[in-house]
Amino acid sequence: MARSTAGQTGIAGRIDAANREALRRMLAADPVLVDVVPAHSVMPALAERTILHAGPPIGWERMCGPMRGAVAGIAVFEGWAKDLDEAEALARDGAFTFDANHHHDAVGPMTGMTTRSQMVMVVENRAFGNSTYCTINEGLGKVMRFGGNDPEVLTRLRWLKDVLGPALGRALRDCGGVPLKNLVARGLTMGDEMHQRNVACSGLFLRAIAPALARTSDDRGRLAEALAFIAANDQFFLNIAMALGKAIMDPVRNIDGSSVVTAMSRNGTDFGIRVSGCGDEWFTAPVEQPRGLYFPGYDEADANPDMGDSTIVETIGLGGFAMAASPAVAGFVGAGSAADAALFTREMSEITLVENPEWTIPALDYQGVPSGIDIRLVADSGITPIINTGIAHRLAGVGQVGAGIVNAPLGCFTLAVRAFAGRLGVSR
Amino acid sequence: MARSTAGQTGIAGRIDAANREALRRMLAADPVLVDVVPAHSVMPALAERTILHAGPPIGWERMCGPMRGAVAGIAVFEGWAKDLDEAEALARDGAFTFDANHHHDAVGPMTGMTTRSQMVMVVENRAFGNSTYCTINEGLGKVMRFGGNDPEVLTRLRWLKDVLGPALGRALRDCGGVPLKNLVARGLTMGDEMHQRNVACSGLFLRAIAPALARTSDDRGRLAEALAFIAANDQFFLNIAMALGKAIMDPVRNIDGSSVVTAMSRNGTDFGIRVSGCGDEWFTAPVEQPRGLYFPGYDEADANPDMGDSTIVETIGLGGFAMAASPAVAGFVGAGSAADAALFTREMSEITLVENPEWTIPALDYQGVPSGIDIRLVADSGITPIINTGIAHRLAGVGQVGAGIVNAPLGCFTLAVRAFAGRLGVSR
Repeated sequence: MARSTAGQTGIAGRIDAANREALRRMLAADPVLVDVVPAHSVMPALAERTILHAGPPIGWERMCGPMRGAVAGIAVFEGWAKDLDEAEALARDGAFTFDANHHHDAVGPMTGMTTRSQMVMVVENRAFGNSTYCTINEGLGKVMRFGGNDPEVLTRLRWLKDVLGPALGRALRDCGGVPLKNLVARGLTMGDEMHQRNVACSGLFLRAIAPALARTSDDRGRLAEALAFIAANDQFFLNIAMALGKAIMDPVRNIDGSSVVTAMSRNGTDFGIRVSGCGDEWFTAPVEQPRGLYFPGYDEADANPDMGDSTIVETIGLGGFAMAASPAVAGFVGAGSAADAALFTREMSEITLVENPEWTIPALDYQGVPSGIDIRLVADSGITPIINTGIAHRLAGVGQVGAGIVNAPLGCFTLAVRAFAGRLGVSR
Repeated sequence: MARSTAGQTGIAGRIDAANREALRRMLAADPVLVDVVPAHSVMPALAERTILHAGPPIGWERMCGPMRGAVAGIAVFEGWAKDLDEAEALARDGAFTFDANHHHDAVGPMTGMTTRSQMVMVVENRAFGNSTYCTINEGLGKVMRFGGNDPEVLTRLRWLKDVLGPALGRALRDCGGVPLKNLVARGLTMGDEMHQRNVACSGLFLRAIAPALARTSDDRGRLAEALAFIAANDQFFLNIAMALGKAIMDPVRNIDGSSVVTAMSRNGTDFGIRVSGCGDEWFTAPVEQPRGLYFPGYDEADANPDMGDSTIVETIGLGGFAMAASPAVAGFVGAGSAADAALFTREMSEITLVENPEWTIPALDYQGVPSGIDIRLVADSGITPIINTGIAHRLAGVGQVGAGIVNAPLGCFTLAVRAFAGRLGVSR
């Protein structure tokens, strides 16, 4: 399935050998959702006033509106400020330490706030022993990941921290965890692409966890609330898929000579990628504006540019790469008909090294999702990764205004190819 | 969307007007799963020693092996016989009253046993006020609907009667019922065709009912059992889809001059159809043998001919008619690739009058499922309805051995057309 490399020698052969190892690690991954725990208990960097965000590193001064809104909101949630105004003033004064989720085994959707008191889901890659973390999906509408920060948003975050998170943790420990690889495989046969459509996987996850939730609950009112929250949120699985994506890709990092992309991520200002053979360096370019469909009352003038760590799902061949599995999402993001959906997946095959034999698409007669983005193929073809994304309002405090598609900027890949060539001692 | 009838007069115009009314009633249906109750409480005919079965009426002497096995098993379950041998002897001696489920507002999968003590799900068609009944799906493997009758089978039936049925009834009353029309619409976008693939709808149903199950349960062990049983059964929704199908089609019965099929059903020996303009008459022909894939250790020599009331789902445009929605089921039943799946749906458009605008298939760019089988179109084209079906072992007591596709026999339709023409006073 991997592109043939027989007979190649020298630099090209060395890159191909490194990429074979990268693909081997990707496909051998065994991600299992094992627990939900307070973030500070597993992420030692999460001190007081430390805020992790989506995308490559960024300071307050360059943050977009919704990310600033989320920062203010999470500071109030953590008790570091009495209200949003004080939180903003503290941020301006440099009172908070900011860093990227990706630097701490974590990912977060859209603004991607991760702080010490939040509960995080733990995905363990049992083939390699690494673990990754992501907060619990808040549902749709006015939520912190889209820049929401009012009392309704903070109340929900408290309920996730005090009720749902601990309940899910008990249930996962009780049942020994929920293996995710086959669940995603099944979701692909049910119209999910795991970025903008997660209704099937969210339902399959509820089926997997509901009996253990019941066994470990001693309050039927709270149990009913927990079940209802998961059941009412078609995107519940997104955050699980993201932790899964990072759990799969982290062991692929730092393979000398590999041109495979190990992360794509955006902070609403910059788009960044990491490449296996280039260590943990970020190659960044300005994020692009999604093209999409807007909720009633909003249009593209309201839209914030592309944001979030959720592009980790495209990095593993899902999301826009698996559009053919999800003709319904193509309509939702304004990408056209079922026939158009298949074209996106076929195009992504041009910039990837393998079709994942375990994650297949019935409508393409069980072709595997295109996986293993090679920066050389992107730079040579000019075809950039396609991403299915939610669209946040550009101002703090509003929330989601639509959904669409967006491309990773070519600039990240040309920068990366140059650095990659430099590491290999060749000019390009 | 309905085929044009403008300008037609006389008999043809009369038939078209009647069929328009039939389609109006089909599409206006509003089926809601409202309760689970003991069968005898809603089906007064269910006296002692009365056994309802799938398909058109049949007596013990002509019943196939798995149906005889199920009769013996259900008689032991009801306490009418101390063991299977005594039950068979009683059956041979005429001690049981047999009748068709369809004569009592009910449907049952495969052997379709319905007796007084079993719990039945109640689907109410709120647009027309009629209600229909179906037992709870037992899961896969050795189960009574496939002719299983050993202690494991009977123990499960007792648990459905004593634990799951009452729990589901409480939950449905608590939440005011689960509307089914949109749930099916969603399932079609998730790869279900509602006959041999119900994993999406089963998950969507669990999402809908789990919070109410939790609210109305006072024993978390039993609640966990109930959630686990539903969660582990990908075909749980089949029996709901069947009751929904009958709830939709029953108001379409007895429209003078309508050539629309209101039921298709089989008892393992005969295939029967009913036609709106022909009252409640059955038009029967010998059932055909499914062509399919067998579980390891079995082949077509083990297969019982086609059986069950489940063809009510094809009667409303689902199952084989919606194959294009479900490329995965095409593989499961041995019907070929994704491209082949679409061909089945397109062919069924040749014998139906309308595409259901509320039940659409993303992979066909949102074409509606082909609905409203017209006996004239079947007889004229020779194209017979395609059915996705489970395959039972031909001997009593074994269970399911495979899954496949089968056609309704043309003979039912030619008989029906002749009778229909006679009622209209024309020869054909």
